Amino acid sequence: MIPRHDPHLKAFASDNYAGVHPEILQAIVTANGGHQIAYGEDAYTEALQDVFRRHFGEQAQAWPVFNGTAANVVSLRAMTRTWEAVICAESAHINTDEGGAPEVTAGIKLLPVPTPDGKLTPELVDRQAWGFGDVHRAQPRVVSLSNTTELGTLYTPEEITALCAHAHERGLLVHLDGSRLTNAAAALDVPMRALTTDAGVDVLSFGGTKIGLLYGEAVVVLNPEAASGVDYIRKTFMQLSSKMRFVSAQFEALLGGDLWLRNARQANAMGRRLADAVRDIPGVVLPRPVEANAVFVVLPPDVTERLQKRFRFYTWNEATGEVRWMCAFDTTEADVDAFAAAVAEEMAASAT
Amino acid sequence: MIPRHDPHLKAFASDNYAGVHPEILQAIVTANGGHQIAYGEDAYTEALQDVFRRHFGEQAQAWPVFNGTAANVVSLRAMTRTWEAVICAESAHINTDEGGAPEVTAGIKLLPVPTPDGKLTPELVDRQAWGFGDVHRAQPRVVSLSNTTELGTLYTPEEITALCAHAHERGLLVHLDGSRLTNAAAALDVPMRALTTDAGVDVLSFGGTKIGLLYGEAVVVLNPEAASGVDYIRKTFMQLSSKMRFVSAQFEALLGGDLWLRNARQANAMGRRLADAVRDIPGVVLPRPVEANAVFVVLPPDVTERLQKRFRFYTWNEATGEVRWMCAFDTTEADVDAFAAAVAEEMAASAT
Amino acid sequence: MIPRHDPHLKAFASDNYAGVHPEILQAIVTANGGHQIAYGEDAYTEALQDVFRRHFGEQAQAWPVFNGTAANVVSLRAMTRTWEAVICAESAHINTDEGGAPEVTAGIKLLPVPTPDGKLTPELVDRQAWGFGDVHRAQPRVVSLSNTTELGTLYTPEEITALCAHAHERGLLVHLDGSRLTNAAAALDVPMRALTTDAGVDVLSFGGTKIGLLYGEAVVVLNPEAASGVDYIRKTFMQLSSKMRFVSAQFEALLGGDLWLRNARQANAMGRRLADAVRDIPGVVLPRPVEANAVFVVLPPDVTERLQKRFRFYTWNEATGEVRWMCAFDTTEADVDAFAAAVAEEMAASAT
Amino acid sequence: MIPRHDPHLKAFASDNYAGVHPEILQAIVTANGGHQIAYGEDAYTEALQDVFRRHFGEQAQAWPVFNGTAANVVSLRAMTRTWEAVICAESAHINTDEGGAPEVTAGIKLLPVPTPDGKLTPELVDRQAWGFGDVHRAQPRVVSLSNTTELGTLYTPEEITALCAHAHERGLLVHLDGSRLTNAAAALDVPMRALTTDAGVDVLSFGGTKIGLLYGEAVVVLNPEAASGVDYIRKTFMQLSSKMRFVSAQFEALLGGDLWLRNARQANAMGRRLADAVRDIPGVVLPRPVEANAVFVVLPPDVTERLQKRFRFYTWNEATGEVRWMCAFDTTEADVDAFAAAVAEEMAASAT
Repeated sequence: MIPRHDPHLKAFASDNYAGVHPEILQAIVTANGGHQIAYGEDAYTEALQDVFRRHFGEQAQAWPVFNGTAANVVSLRAMTRTWEAVICAESAHINTDEGGAPEVTAGIKLLPVPTPDGKLTPELVDRQAWGFGDVHRAQPRVVSLSNTTELGTLYTPEEITALCAHAHERGLLVHLDGSRLTNAAAALDVPMRALTTDAGVDVLSFGGTKIGLLYGEAVVVLNPEAASGVDYIRKTFMQLSSKMRFVSAQFEALLGGDLWLRNARQANAMGRRLADAVRDIPGVVLPRPVEANAVFVVLPPDVTERLQKRFRFYTWNEATGEVRWMCAFDTTEADVDAFAAAVAEEMAASAT
Repeated sequence: MIPRHDPHLKAFASDNYAGVHPEILQAIVTANGGHQIAYGEDAYTEALQDVFRRHFGEQAQAWPVFNGTAANVVSLRAMTRTWEAVICAESAHINTDEGGAPEVTAGIKLLPVPTPDGKLTPELVDRQAWGFGDVHRAQPRVVSLSNTTELGTLYTPEEITALCAHAHERGLLVHLDGSRLTNAAAALDVPMRALTTDAGVDVLSFGGTKIGLLYGEAVVVLNPEAASGVDYIRKTFMQLSSKMRFVSAQFEALLGGDLWLRNARQANAMGRRLADAVRDIPGVVLPRPVEANAVFVVLPPDVTERLQKRFRFYTWNEATGEVRWMCAFDTTEADVDAFAAAVAEEMAASAT
Repeated sequence: MIPRHDPHLKAFASDNYAGVHPEILQAIVTANGGHQIAYGEDAYTEALQDVFRRHFGEQAQAWPVFNGTAANVVSLRAMTRTWEAVICAESAHINTDEGGAPEVTAGIKLLPVPTPDGKLTPELVDRQAWGFGDVHRAQPRVVSLSNTTELGTLYTPEEITALCAHAHERGLLVHLDGSRLTNAAAALDVPMRALTTDAGVDVLSFGGTKIGLLYGEAVVVLNPEAASGVDYIRKTFMQLSSKMRFVSAQFEALLGGDLWLRNARQANAMGRRLADAVRDIPGVVLPRPVEANAVFVVLPPDVTERLQKRFRFYTWNEATGEVRWMCAFDTTEADVDAFAAAVAEEMAASAT
Repeated sequence: MIPRHDPHLKAFASDNYAGVHPEILQAIVTANGGHQIAYGEDAYTEALQDVFRRHFGEQAQAWPVFNGTAANVVSLRAMTRTWEAVICAESAHINTDEGGAPEVTAGIKLLPVPTPDGKLTPELVDRQAWGFGDVHRAQPRVVSLSNTTELGTLYTPEEITALCAHAHERGLLVHLDGSRLTNAAAALDVPMRALTTDAGVDVLSFGGTKIGLLYGEAVVVLNPEAASGVDYIRKTFMQLSSKMRFVSAQFEALLGGDLWLRNARQANAMGRRLADAVRDIPGVVLPRPVEANAVFVVLPPDVTERLQKRFRFYTWNEATGEVRWMCAFDTTEADVDAFAAAVAEEMAASAT
C-alpha cells in the first residue's frame, strides 16, 4: 500500500486528527503473532486489570471498547434501569455529538442543563434532580460530567468531590466522560484517581484514542455497586473486540509507564504556547480560560476563512465568530509557532 | 511493553484467534504520522471506495465499522423501517451469537428458520415470508444469509442468485453476512462479486478481522435503493471510528491486491488438509462437508477433553460430541500436522 | 349517535368481536360522575388490589393496562434486564401476533421453540435454556407460557407446576400470558390461583377484554422479587390510563363476584357444543382437542369460502385448510346451532 | 359493584379528573351488542374517517389510540427515521411528563428549547434547527408544538402558520400535541382546522379524554407525505384496541355534532370565571394570561396548604408558590364560586 498523505502536516482541528504514538504501535507489534484467545481471554487483557488498578484503585475494573461514544453508552446503560435518566450539561458530548446514541440505541433519556462553561455544579444538577418517585418523570439516576469539558475547561478534584457528594446524597450516581481525562490530570498535576475514584466518581469512560492510541477506550467501573451487566452490555452494544489483545496491549503501553502523562503534558503545553502566542495579537479575543489542550478564540470572519484554507480547524459558533484550536500529543513547538505566525499574518491582513 | 504470549503457538478454535497479517500492519504504519481529518474524510478512506468498487461493482459504497456484529446491525437497520423484520437461519450469527444486538440495540425482530445445514432455501424463506400487510405480524423485509455459514457450508453463486430472485419477487431485500466471504469465494474459485452483486445481494457485511485485519469490517451497500441513512446509523450505532484512516488503509492492503485471496486460500487449504488427515482415523466422524476453513468432527468425550488440554477449540454440541476446528490465514501445514497427530494419539489412547 | 350495526349478529372469529357485558357497562356508569384523582389514585383502583388478592394471594399486586400486548410487554420488561431474553413457544402471541412489540418497543429478544400443540414442556424449555454466562448469547431469563394457548389447548395445574419448578431450578422466571386464563380455569374447574400463584408463576398478564370488559388487562405480579419498576414501566410504555377508575371498576365487576366464571363457562360450553355439533358431519375433521372456547376444524376450501360469506371466522392455515372458530361470553346456544346448521349445509353442498 | 366515591365532588387539579360525558356513555351503549370485527374493521371506525375529515380536511386520516402519550409517540415515530430528532419546548408534555416514552420506547431524541411561556417561535426553533447533514448530530426533523400549551397559553392560527412555514422551509415537519386542541379552538373561536390543517400542521395528536371521553385519543395525519407506517406502528406500540368500535363511537359522539365545542366552551368559561373571581382578592397573583381552562396563581404557601386539604389541585412550582387550577367540561358555576369563596377565606385567614 502506498502512502496517501503528508506525514509531516499537522492541523489544529482535533486531537483525533493525530495518528498513533510509536510506543503504541510497538505494543501492537509485540502482541502480534501466534494465536490468543479471542474476545478478551488473552494474556494482555488479563494483565490489563492491574494496569488500571494502579491508576484507579483496587476495586476498578476496566472493559475495553472501540470508541468514546460506546464507552459512554455502555457505561450509562450499565448504570441505569429502563425508566432512569441521565443529567448532563447541555454541551456534553453525549448530548450534542453522538448522533443520539444514548437515546436511539440504549433508550436512555438525557436531562440537559445549560451551563456557562460546560461545567455542572450542585445547583445546576438540582435543576434536573427532582421528581423522584413521580412516574410521569423519567427518573434521574446518573449525573454525567466531562473532564476536560467540551469547552476546554477543567473540574478540580474539589469540584468533582463536591458534585459526587451532592449527587450521592440525592441517590444519584456519577459518570465521568474522560475522553480527555489524561489532559485534565496533567494540567492539574494530580494523579487521575484524584479526579475519579478518590473524588467519588462511580463509572468512568476512559479515553485512549485522543492521547495516542490507534483505537480503544475503556469503561472503568470504580464502584462495583454502580453498574451491572457490563460484560453482556458491551457485547450486545457491539463493542466486544475479537482481537482484544491488541486493544489491551495499547492500554498497557499507554498506562503501564508514563506515556499517558508525557503525551498529555505535551498537548497541554502546546495549548498554552498557542494561547500565549496569539493572546496579544490585536483583535484576537480568548473568551475562555485555556486550561488544557483546547484554545477557543474569537476571530474576524475573514481571518477565519483565510486561516482555514491554510490549517484545518473548526468554527465553534458561527454567530459569535468563535473557533476552536486543539493541540495533540504530537503537536510540536514548530507547529504552534508556524500556526501562530499565520494567525498574526491573517489578522494583520484583515486590519489593513 | 513486554510480550506476554508465545508467538508461535496456534489454536484451532477460531480464525479470530489469529493476529494481524504483516502486510496489514505495514499499511497501518504507512498511514501513520501527521494529521488526517478524522471520522472518514481522510485520504485513505477516500481511496477505499475504488477498492471496494473493483470487487463489488460501480454502485458499491463501503462504510467501515469496528466489528462484525456492528456491520450486521447497521446493515439491517439501514434496510428496515421500525415495523419490519428479518428472516434468517436459526443458526445465523445474528440470531445466536450477537448477544441480542439486533433486537436490543436496533429493535429489529428476527424471524428464524431451522435449517439442516445453516443454509436457507427459497422454501425455507417462505416459512417466514408471509403475513404481508397484516399489522399483527412484524413485516418480513429482509432475508439475511451467511456465506460461509456458521456450519462451515457454502452457498454457490447459483444458490444465492435463486434466493435473491425469490426474495425480490416477494418484495424482500437480501443481506449477506460475509464475515467469511473471502473464504467462500476462494473455496468456490469465483470473484466475490459472483456471490454478491451479480447474484442480487442488496447489502453486504464484509469481514476483515478473521482474514488478517487488526480490526475492521464494512457495510457495503450494493443496491443503493436498499439502504438509507447508513452514514447516520453508523455514527448513532457507535461505529464511526475517529482515526478511520487506519481502518481504510487495512482494507486497501487486504483488497487492493490479492492478500485476501492468499489468506483465504491458505485457511481453506489448511481446513482441507486437516479434514484429510483425520478422516481415516478410526472413530473420527466428519458429520458435515468441509467446504472452506471449518472442520466439524464428532469425537468421543474423553478424546475431546484431553485434546482441549493440548489445543484450544470449541465444543459445538455437548449432546452429540461434535466439535469445531477452524483454520486461519496463519495456520501452517506443520500446525495442522501436529494437531492431526495429536488427534490420532488421543483417539488411539481412547480406543485402548 | 346512531347505531351502525346489527346488535344481534354474532361471529365465530374471536372472543374480542363481542361487546361489553351489561354488568361491566353498569360498573362504568357507577364509577362515573364527579372528580376522581387521575392515574390510579382513585377509590376504585385502591379497592382493586383486594379483588386481585382474593384470586391470586396476598402478595399479588395488579397494574391495569390498556391491552394484552401491553400487559405482556410491561411484564417482560419488568422481569428482565437489558441483556436478558424470553423463551416462548413459537406459536406464542408475543412471537406471532404483536407486531414485534417486545423486540421493537422494549428491545427484548425472544427465544422461540417449535411445539406440536402450543405448549412448552421442561424438555422444550431446555432447547433454549442454555448458554448461561456466555456473553455472546442473549441470556435466557424468563419462560413465557400462554393458558389457554393460541391453539386452544390447556395447561393443567400439574403441568404448570412442573414447568415452574424446572424454570426456577435453572434460574428462570415464569410469565403467564393469561389473556384467556378465565377460560382455562373454568374449563379445568379450578381456581385461577391453582394455575398461577400456587403453581409458581411469577408474573401474570391477566386478560379482561376477551371475557367481557370494554377494555383493560392487568399486569399481576405474583412474586414481588420477580419484577421491578412496574409503575414506571407502565407509564413509559404508554399504558397509564388517566381515568383509571373506569378500568378498575370494570375489573371489580368482573372479579369481585362470579361474572368472570359465568362468562368463561358460557364461552367454553359453547365451544364444546359447537364441537359436538359438527364432529359427526362427514368430512369435518377436528385436528386438536377442544379444551376451552376455541374449535379448530379442517374444512374443504370451498366450504370455508362459502361459510365465511355467512359468518366471519379466520383461516388458521391456508395449506392444510384448518380454520379457527371461537366462542365468546355472549355466544348463545341458538348462535351455535345456527352456525352448526350452516356448516352442515355447506358440507352437504360440497359433497354433492 | 357499589359506588366508592361522591359523584358530586369536583376538584381543580386536572381535566382528566372528570368522568365521562353522558352523551359519550350513550354512544358506548349504542355501539354495544352483537359482534363487530375487532381491531378497527368495524362499522363505527369506518364512519370515523368522515367525522375527522369534516373537521380536518379531505386528506386527514385518523388512527385512534389509547392515550395521549401514545398519540405523541406513534405520531413522532411515524414522522421520523432512526437517526432523526424532535425539537420541542422544554416544558412540552413529551419532554417532561411522559416518563421518557419517546426516548425509551421509540428511541427518539428530543431537542428541547427553554421558553418563557411554553410557546415556540421561529427564533426558538432555530436554536435547535441546525447541524443538518452532520452525522454527529441527531438530525432535527420534526417541530412539536402543544396547543393549548402546558402553561395554559394559546397559539393563534397566525402563529402556527408562521411556525409551520418556518419549519417547512428548513425541511422540518410539524407535529401538534392537541390534547387540549378543543379548548384552544373554542377559546379562539375558530374551527380546529384553522389551527392545524390550514396552518400547515402535518400530524396531530388529537385529545379526547380530557374533553369528556372515557378513553381515546387519535393520531390524525393531515399531510399524508409526513408520516408512514402508522397502522403498523400503532400495533407495535401497543395501541391497537381490539374493541375499537367503542373508541370510534365515542369520537363520533364528540365530533359528529357540537359536543366537543360545548364541552370546551364550558371548561374555558369556568377558567375565566375562576380567574375573574380571584383576581381581585388581595395577595392573589395571576402570573400568566388565562387563555383557556387553566388558571395559574401564586399563593402564600400556608394558603395553598390549607386549600389543598379542601380541594385537590397541583403545586406547579414549589419555589415560587405557583399553583395550577384546571377546569373541566363538567365544572359548574357553583363549583367555581364555592372554590373561589374558599380561596378568599383562606387568603383572609392568612392575612390576619
